[in-house]
Amino acid sequence: MSSFPMNAGDGPYSYSKNSPLAKEALNGAKRMVRDAIIQNLDIKIMLSSSSNIICIADFGCSVGPNTFIAMQHVVQALKDKYHNKILEFQVFFNDHVTNDFNTLFRSLPIDRSYYAFGVPGTFHGRLFPSRSIHFAHSINSIHWLSKCPEELLDEKSPAWNKGLIHYMGTSNVEVLNAYVAQFEKDMEMLLNARAEEIVEGGMMVLVTPFESYLRLIKFFGSSLMDLVNEGKLDEFLVDSFNLPMYFPSPEDMTKVVEKNGCFNIEKVELTYPKSKLVDEADAKTIMINLRAILEGVLSNHFGCKIAEEACTRTILKSDEISIWMKANYERSCQLFIALKRK
Amino acid sequence: MSSFPMNAGDGPYSYSKNSPLAKEALNGAKRMVRDAIIQNLDIKIMLSSSSNIICIADFGCSVGPNTFIAMQHVVQALKDKYHNKILEFQVFFNDHVTNDFNTLFRSLPIDRSYYAFGVPGTFHGRLFPSRSIHFAHSINSIHWLSKCPEELLDEKSPAWNKGLIHYMGTSNVEVLNAYVAQFEKDMEMLLNARAEEIVEGGMMVLVTPFESYLRLIKFFGSSLMDLVNEGKLDEFLVDSFNLPMYFPSPEDMTKVVEKNGCFNIEKVELTYPKSKLVDEADAKTIMINLRAILEGVLSNHFGCKIAEEACTRTILKSDEISIWMKANYERSCQLFIALKRK
Repeated sequence: MSSFPMNAGDGPYSYSKNSPLAKEALNGAKRMVRDAIIQNLDIKIMLSSSSNIICIADFGCSVGPNTFIAMQHVVQALKDKYHNKILEFQVFFNDHVTNDFNTLFRSLPIDRSYYAFGVPGTFHGRLFPSRSIHFAHSINSIHWLSKCPEELLDEKSPAWNKGLIHYMGTSNVEVLNAYVAQFEKDMEMLLNARAEEIVEGGMMVLVTPFESYLRLIKFFGSSLMDLVNEGKLDEFLVDSFNLPMYFPSPEDMTKVVEKNGCFNIEKVELTYPKSKLVDEADAKTIMINLRAILEGVLSNHFGCKIAEEACTRTILKSDEISIWMKANYERSCQLFIALKRK
Repeated sequence: MSSFPMNAGDGPYSYSKNSPLAKEALNGAKRMVRDAIIQNLDIKIMLSSSSNIICIADFGCSVGPNTFIAMQHVVQALKDKYHNKILEFQVFFNDHVTNDFNTLFRSLPIDRSYYAFGVPGTFHGRLFPSRSIHFAHSINSIHWLSKCPEELLDEKSPAWNKGLIHYMGTSNVEVLNAYVAQFEKDMEMLLNARAEEIVEGGMMVLVTPFESYLRLIKFFGSSLMDLVNEGKLDEFLVDSFNLPMYFPSPEDMTKVVEKNGCFNIEKVELTYPKSKLVDEADAKTIMINLRAILEGVLSNHFGCKIAEEACTRTILKSDEISIWMKANYERSCQLFIALKRK
């Protein structure tokens, strides 16, 4: 199983310093996460236990600081809901074993009101004992596929994705189908694992980008094709590369959850983050953020030099991207889904 | 509070590649840890719970591989004790936030039969919710003091430790008293924290070096004094440096546990590890191991260059040390203590 950690450390292109898109998603979901906890969470185990421990997990936490902000919101909502109880909180920060947990741990808030743990491993498999998690959270993570769909790696397959790095923009339905099939397999594994781990009445909230990323990724693809056209990169390498990301629709999510059968869907909604990111930050900031997200997966396929060249070129196109964004970015949105364990 | 992680990564002087002394301690304690679990552990909470989760913590785990071997022993002993139950195990790997958790996580055994978590923070403070740990384990860790006793830092204090880097070898009782007082303060914090965290009938096993380290540290001290005598190092720097390690006696441990009042002492014993370390590994291997342990704390005080020079010189004295060890090392031993939460 592949893993593509965000850029590590705290350097100029590190994820820890460059995550306004995740912060935007976080702000967009803040109220909805709180409402889900206040209105839908229904954990009975607490009433019978002498020590009232609530276990929260953030799946695909990366290195912070957004995960700390998100977990503080969750803890506060739980405190407000159960204000007449004395609670203790355990927060489990999960990401791939290749994630930079050292940076995560060293930036944990000093004044946190929870016990903090790191959990290395893929969220497509089991990470916790049975019935041990009360609230699961995942933001901007489940759209990462566990691997590139295999059909896309075969030049002779009808799903060969010529000249593109993603299903966005293709007219080949086989390419899209391969992505959908991989997403469904991954979600089946994820839901099976969480169904074991989450207590009855416990919840899982998933937030995933719906349009925004799709629209900006293409600029990285066109930078790579520029390198092909200049004779600096073999086109086969671009054709055989496919970003392992699928942006599910509400219908996609409903389908996989219903197939799994262990969760009730409390809410599934496309939302428009209210932040003024486009006004406040320029295109360059956003493209540097995307670079922090994508450079790892690009380096893995193209090597560090080409990945860096493609990223640098994409950031240099900021003016062009800025004009495009002002015309298009308003329509970016995210998918919010709240599930309750039956 | 200071922290002095073992040398990180997996380079030639890294702790992960150089820990035969810890392995020796581990082998020496193996049978006793098992006996403590089989004979003394008495956790009632499991009988009433629908999901039988056992929580184990290793305090001061460093980066492995010894912690993985130790935790596998503990899990196996628990499986044997409760062989008629279906259990799930959570193992919490604790060390300072400066510990190299990335290396720890990346070397976790693939075939482990437990869920693994990292817990960053000092074990002198709280790390877990109340009554959430069933078995606590700490090997070769509690002899690290949270800081150098302050009296030793004042040139005008009667506890000024001239020409030495430890209480070993001093005739100044004030130096020893300062170490003892710091150890008692640290253990009080540790026991208070664990008393909250460990369930009734749960246990804590502590293993700490008693003689062996004491005997070898002096060679690092004499290398530093060589540098002083050659005019390469200010003697004040050596006088003001004191290794923050205290090697408690059975009486020291009994005193602090009885003062705390929350634990029954099931066993306290000085043991002679049965391993043939001196025969199998030469003095050089052992001194490289000590270097991996001490270089961090030496660098912190003397700077990297002097620390490296002192360590390199000490390793070069391997022949002399080897002769000394063959005559003296047999008497090295470790203190084992098993506590049960009242």
